[in-house]
Amino acid sequence: MSREHSLNQALRALLARRRTAALGTVDVSGAAFVSMVPFAADPASASLVIHVSALAAHSQNLQARPQASLMVADGEVADAPVHALARVSIEVLATWAEPGSALAAQCRAAYLARFPEAEPMTTLGDFRFVRLSPQSARQVAGFGAARSLSADELAQALGHTAA
Amino acid sequence: MSREHSLNQALRALLARRRTAALGTVDVSGAAFVSMVPFAADPASASLVIHVSALAAHSQNLQARPQASLMVADGEVADAPVHALARVSIEVLATWAEPGSALAAQCRAAYLARFPEAEPMTTLGDFRFVRLSPQSARQVAGFGAARSLSADELAQALGHTAA
Repeated sequence: MSREHSLNQALRALLARRRTAALGTVDVSGAAFVSMVPFAADPASASLVIHVSALAAHSQNLQARPQASLMVADGEVADAPVHALARVSIEVLATWAEPGSALAAQCRAAYLARFPEAEPMTTLGDFRFVRLSPQSARQVAGFGAARSLSADELAQALGHTAA
Repeated sequence: MSREHSLNQALRALLARRRTAALGTVDVSGAAFVSMVPFAADPASASLVIHVSALAAHSQNLQARPQASLMVADGEVADAPVHALARVSIEVLATWAEPGSALAAQCRAAYLARFPEAEPMTTLGDFRFVRLSPQSARQVAGFGAARSLSADELAQALGHTAA
């Protein structure tokens, strides 16, 4: 198994294993703001999906500036070192799904497949689905196992098979 | 027990329980970048401490812009919902500890008390301790249990007893 194949597999497993991410947005003053977001993958579009309240600070930041950073890290294990935990920081571009659109339906299906318990939240008027399209990433799979990925490499790693 | 006392206790417990955080910095283009950082608390200064390579992207961002966002979230529990996981997003100001300074010694003591296994990394020439001084925070302790904290309230919550 090649190193690339192995790292791709590790990345897919990480994103499948973890349900929450740290979303980094930038506010009007130019300062970073990190918040926790549950996320789902949408393999058909090789993108990620979040579901946010339009009233939340990260949503206001994303509306003003759609470029964001999404970091997914492996879970801490009690009594085990944390410095080499697997993680990935993905540079993403946010697209808001208009309620009733085909995009909203696709996001909703991907999100509720992972989080069926979130269905009642989708009836709240101020919540919207947002597609996060990966632009590039930095993956750390352990000590000495780090790499940068382009958008094309990410699409490959996420298992997207373009027509 | 008052609501404030209860939320303070929850915040202290979260920061004691978790060893890793998501650090949000801003790069030269004004884009957010989120990376995983192990962190320690330094109760004497009511601050947090990280240990970073000067070569890393987050370090270069922090040197250009010391304002950052640090998010600490509770661990995911298998088969349990994640939307109401306890977390806190802390707006911090970074101060770099000059090697050999009193600040470096204080940061080192706080950091190695939590991460004794990181001692060999402190001998690497490009690593530095950085003190993160909390400026404000947004704490989510569960559904319907969110609040904003000022720097003074954070110092209280972190158990700092100023002279």
